[in-house]
Amino acid sequence: MQHSIPYGVADYFWSESLQRQQMMDVLLETFRRWGYGDVIPPTFEFADSLSAQASAGLRAEMYRFLDRDGSTLALRPEFTTPLARLVATRLHDWPMPQRFCYAGSVFRYVSPQAGRQREFLQAGVELIGASTPEADAEVLALTVAALRAAELTDFRVVVGQIRYFGGLLADLKLTPEQEDALREAIDRKSEPALASFLRDVPLRTQQRRTVEELPNLNGSSLSQIIDQADRYCLNYEMHAALENLRAVCDVLAAYGVTDAVDLDLTEIRNLGYYTGVTFEALAPGMGFGIASGGRYDDLIGHFGKGQPAVGVAMGVDRLLLARQRQRGEQRSPHPPPPDCLVITAGDATSNAAALAQVQRWREDGQRVQVEVNGRSNEDVLAYARKLGIAKVLRWTGRAFEEMEV
Amino acid sequence: MQHSIPYGVADYFWSESLQRQQMMDVLLETFRRWGYGDVIPPTFEFADSLSAQASAGLRAEMYRFLDRDGSTLALRPEFTTPLARLVATRLHDWPMPQRFCYAGSVFRYVSPQAGRQREFLQAGVELIGASTPEADAEVLALTVAALRAAELTDFRVVVGQIRYFGGLLADLKLTPEQEDALREAIDRKSEPALASFLRDVPLRTQQRRTVEELPNLNGSSLSQIIDQADRYCLNYEMHAALENLRAVCDVLAAYGVTDAVDLDLTEIRNLGYYTGVTFEALAPGMGFGIASGGRYDDLIGHFGKGQPAVGVAMGVDRLLLARQRQRGEQRSPHPPPPDCLVITAGDATSNAAALAQVQRWREDGQRVQVEVNGRSNEDVLAYARKLGIAKVLRWTGRAFEEMEV
Repeated sequence: MQHSIPYGVADYFWSESLQRQQMMDVLLETFRRWGYGDVIPPTFEFADSLSAQASAGLRAEMYRFLDRDGSTLALRPEFTTPLARLVATRLHDWPMPQRFCYAGSVFRYVSPQAGRQREFLQAGVELIGASTPEADAEVLALTVAALRAAELTDFRVVVGQIRYFGGLLADLKLTPEQEDALREAIDRKSEPALASFLRDVPLRTQQRRTVEELPNLNGSSLSQIIDQADRYCLNYEMHAALENLRAVCDVLAAYGVTDAVDLDLTEIRNLGYYTGVTFEALAPGMGFGIASGGRYDDLIGHFGKGQPAVGVAMGVDRLLLARQRQRGEQRSPHPPPPDCLVITAGDATSNAAALAQVQRWREDGQRVQVEVNGRSNEDVLAYARKLGIAKVLRWTGRAFEEMEV
Repeated sequence: MQHSIPYGVADYFWSESLQRQQMMDVLLETFRRWGYGDVIPPTFEFADSLSAQASAGLRAEMYRFLDRDGSTLALRPEFTTPLARLVATRLHDWPMPQRFCYAGSVFRYVSPQAGRQREFLQAGVELIGASTPEADAEVLALTVAALRAAELTDFRVVVGQIRYFGGLLADLKLTPEQEDALREAIDRKSEPALASFLRDVPLRTQQRRTVEELPNLNGSSLSQIIDQADRYCLNYEMHAALENLRAVCDVLAAYGVTDAVDLDLTEIRNLGYYTGVTFEALAPGMGFGIASGGRYDDLIGHFGKGQPAVGVAMGVDRLLLARQRQRGEQRSPHPPPPDCLVITAGDATSNAAALAQVQRWREDGQRVQVEVNGRSNEDVLAYARKLGIAKVLRWTGRAFEEMEV
């Protein structure tokens, strides 16, 4: 009999669990005020559905198991695919756009490192049935609003457009090996790898200049980067990507959030289903993104009638960790004390008045514990001191008397 | 490729998902005010841990699967056992009592019927490290308070004491077959089955009278039932059960909740780990309990140092269904509309003022959608009418103009 828990999952208790619940509450409430409606998909469903357009990496990380009827189920590794399935199969006849928000556990078989668990909380939104820059910008502005509602003071949202690199690839007509080499050089921002790619692969002058310029196409001067990138376009697809980015940035300016946004045209990670704008929110000192999202116009069509869509998913535990670091908070090693501990008298009849008062305090929002162990006053006070309970009230039978803790 | 979801699980959306989230919020907040602290155990853990003192029925209903290292995991079928494990293995050195609350999904492989899903939400509390009637009564009074906070107007909490029947069994010294026959007769409240048991099993007069009386030991006159049961006690164990019940009822009277409580000494279902007071909350017209709980003094010792404990688990979806029926509500067949839909102008610069105002409304708690599909005013109004959005505002570039929906 093992009395531990499996590697990579955790018990959350005391302030840690309260903060997780409260963070989900804050994010969901922000999403609702932007007009997004709660949705709760099943924790597990058919593995095939969840795999729809998942990257090879995500597929490999899925927790699969057999249902008793022999079908293969999996624990959801993210929420976007289940919501795409839901909209395509059950809500396709409803007017578009549709806005959904969620918060809950997702499951991935990863190697646990700092901040990586095999079960972790995600909260996010999907805006479905709108392909405009206004839709992209809404999800980006909402991401900024949600991170601010979560009381993060220092973060950047780094925005890319996967069609810029896609257009470049279409022009270069590389072999799969060459494409992998270029992707890796750009993805790792490795100058030697890029130099090696340029040495090995024969390119036209124009193409070569564009590839060489790519690593410079990032930073916080949004329109300047777009103008610069414009000079290196090789085809319509690359131009279209920039036109979209320019329009998105205009709307972000109207939302007043461009000061929190960077552009990065080297954001080309294999993200599975993304087809346009992609983005990641970063906080200083965190070695991983705290939120990520983008446009995915082909995923819903996988399950039925296609719809353009854009969304974001936030890592709830990562937000908490980033906020904790920004505030310089230590994780509390103690159970959080109630506001007050009440000792009732021996007599049930006289206690009725005391318990009625306790109930009124609770209705006013106070957290009040009642002593239930029948301990002496001394023992109760020792308990209160150990737990840092500042207020202990003793019912005399007629009134409360505050005790010295 | 299947585009449905597995039998027995569901997608929750629109008002249904919002109500589930809000119900969990209300219950958790009630628990916190009674001094209970949030805890979030993993969604899956070792199947052996979860099986600890589970009834045979519950064990058979667990979703088991293999971890990649070959160990057998299972999705949690309830929260009490994971919390018992947590307290015994990690929190045993902290002062007692400890109070925990939770809300989340549990998983059981059941035949789906009305109100039964294979994934469903439970919310509840565990009060650990107190064996007094005051502890039992606190959890019962909190159950009443939580059902009232959940806005149920009509419910009963039916309280039993498993030691009364346990004491009777110890006295009767039945064969396993005879015991099963008696359990079934009592559990099903079947007079013919009880008559048949009494015909088949030779008992002393005193024993026979107690068994015959058992089906009458229930109702809302608490002290009268205890007095009546007292006359049929065969040994100390049965007396002790009644003494405990009497003391619990005294404290419930001090809490002012006895009007919501019934006693039932025939509550003897095989509940796995319960060792004392047991209870179930019932609402009219619901064919199943909406909450259940009791004392389990042996479970925590299974994982380490023993501790007495008492707790309750509520079925969140059942509470919602019961409330809906009591209010005579229909399930809404429409997405819940936002408070307001805003159409911005074509010009990003002038939109800044509009979006700033929208953001202020959102901070004030209003749910405001912004049109992102670039549709004509006519099309937006048609959309608003379809979704029942009562208020549509158009930004003229300088002011909002309310449109006639």
